[in-house]
Amino acid sequence: MQLAMIQDKIVPLSEVEPVYFDRGIFFGDGVYEVVRSYNGKIFALEEHLARFAQSLNAIEIKGVDIKKIRERLEKAFDAADIKNAKIYFHITRGSQPREHVYSDNLKPNFFLTITELSDDTQPKTKGIAVSTHPDWRWKRCDIKSLNLLPNILARTNAAKKGCDEAIFVDDSGLITEGAASAFFAIFEQKLQTAPLTSNILPSITRKFVIEAAKNINLEIVEKSLTPEQAISADELFIAVTTKDIVPVVKFDDKTVGDGTPGKYTKLLIDEFRSFTN
Amino acid sequence: MQLAMIQDKIVPLSEVEPVYFDRGIFFGDGVYEVVRSYNGKIFALEEHLARFAQSLNAIEIKGVDIKKIRERLEKAFDAADIKNAKIYFHITRGSQPREHVYSDNLKPNFFLTITELSDDTQPKTKGIAVSTHPDWRWKRCDIKSLNLLPNILARTNAAKKGCDEAIFVDDSGLITEGAASAFFAIFEQKLQTAPLTSNILPSITRKFVIEAAKNINLEIVEKSLTPEQAISADELFIAVTTKDIVPVVKFDDKTVGDGTPGKYTKLLIDEFRSFTN
Repeated sequence: MQLAMIQDKIVPLSEVEPVYFDRGIFFGDGVYEVVRSYNGKIFALEEHLARFAQSLNAIEIKGVDIKKIRERLEKAFDAADIKNAKIYFHITRGSQPREHVYSDNLKPNFFLTITELSDDTQPKTKGIAVSTHPDWRWKRCDIKSLNLLPNILARTNAAKKGCDEAIFVDDSGLITEGAASAFFAIFEQKLQTAPLTSNILPSITRKFVIEAAKNINLEIVEKSLTPEQAISADELFIAVTTKDIVPVVKFDDKTVGDGTPGKYTKLLIDEFRSFTN
Repeated sequence: MQLAMIQDKIVPLSEVEPVYFDRGIFFGDGVYEVVRSYNGKIFALEEHLARFAQSLNAIEIKGVDIKKIRERLEKAFDAADIKNAKIYFHITRGSQPREHVYSDNLKPNFFLTITELSDDTQPKTKGIAVSTHPDWRWKRCDIKSLNLLPNILARTNAAKKGCDEAIFVDDSGLITEGAASAFFAIFEQKLQTAPLTSNILPSITRKFVIEAAKNINLEIVEKSLTPEQAISADELFIAVTTKDIVPVVKFDDKTVGDGTPGKYTKLLIDEFRSFTN
């Protein structure tokens, strides 16, 4: 008899719930997004949905109606009634007994959570410490997929060093991005960040940071940095949907600038706030 | 109210079953093995359990008793009573609301399936076609993790071309391995395969193939091949737990040798069979 075992329990294969056969768990065969709301309004929803559609397309998960996803999000957001919410959602290719090549008739699995965002303001006001980690990720980081083990390993490594984020460094010694954030440096009146390639997630927050930077007359330089260059920057920060801009005051144990959030970073935080009102 | 949505259904977050919060689905934060039985006997179980322990260790999933895993496998295998069975099992770090950095007190999730192996002998007797695909995988392929999306994309691409396996080619133009198999070439009396590095899974079947090759007096050459070199080989084959040795007769649409399974490949298949009796 074909069977499954879940922890210590044996179950006939035919009676196993489809969630256990999710291709998301067998292969990470799915894509996700994280959006947030500011004061009751979801921020940059269209941009996130557009990127989600791109990710689905890149791994050829078909038959997902983005309009329907938007409706689900809005329905869940209304039901949750949380002012400052974190909305996570993923779609996997569907459930089937484990097999690399997938059936054409699979029904994608949708899963979403809405949780309260932490109102811890300390990272923003005091800045955070980050540490570097080799970029072990796959070659299509432009796809926001569920294959995130290298990110977990890097973040865990950073946490052990007392750091809040890991910054990936590729084989050629260049910084790509953070394990869950985009990475930026400021030199005089220039804002520098890695160019968008297949090794970098096209971050929505990055896009708004660049817009904010233009508004405060910073010159934008899309060029990768080495860790040594990052340490010598006037200011560093990361950008991520759930926290927008977070100053970085320590980089691999070296103090950045005077060890407090820099003046342009603070201006960018203010400017970013104007987008979210 | 914090909540989840599963397809169209809204559920309070506190009532969501832990399986939906498996870190395996959020991040691929887990490792797996596939073993098989030949005629009622599990093959190379100790080797697979040792590799499983290595994978768990590499991603720091702690508190898993391998002896207990062996007992579960044996219990399930006895209950299934399938002579030629495929046994898949994975362990993930556990279930918790999605958060990169994991709690220390998580209980790992174990999942196993036992299914009947196909008795399709055609691949072995006629040989298969394979096609190359860029190796998009992460940099720690020595860990048998659940991050398998690049393998899925490559296999899907191969299937579209009518091929049974995708052969990964890295940035420097060298073959690493198959999407779900080890890859071998025979030139005269030499068996050539890529050396074990962090870009290659330490395949158990590879180990037995090398043992079989020594038994039939082939010289072993652990050196990566280019696709051009592979096409010029006398014989090619892949090796994978569920099918042991499978001859490759077409490589990127080019005929290998005379287009039928080669003589040494057939000798290796026979020799391998002697290990499994």
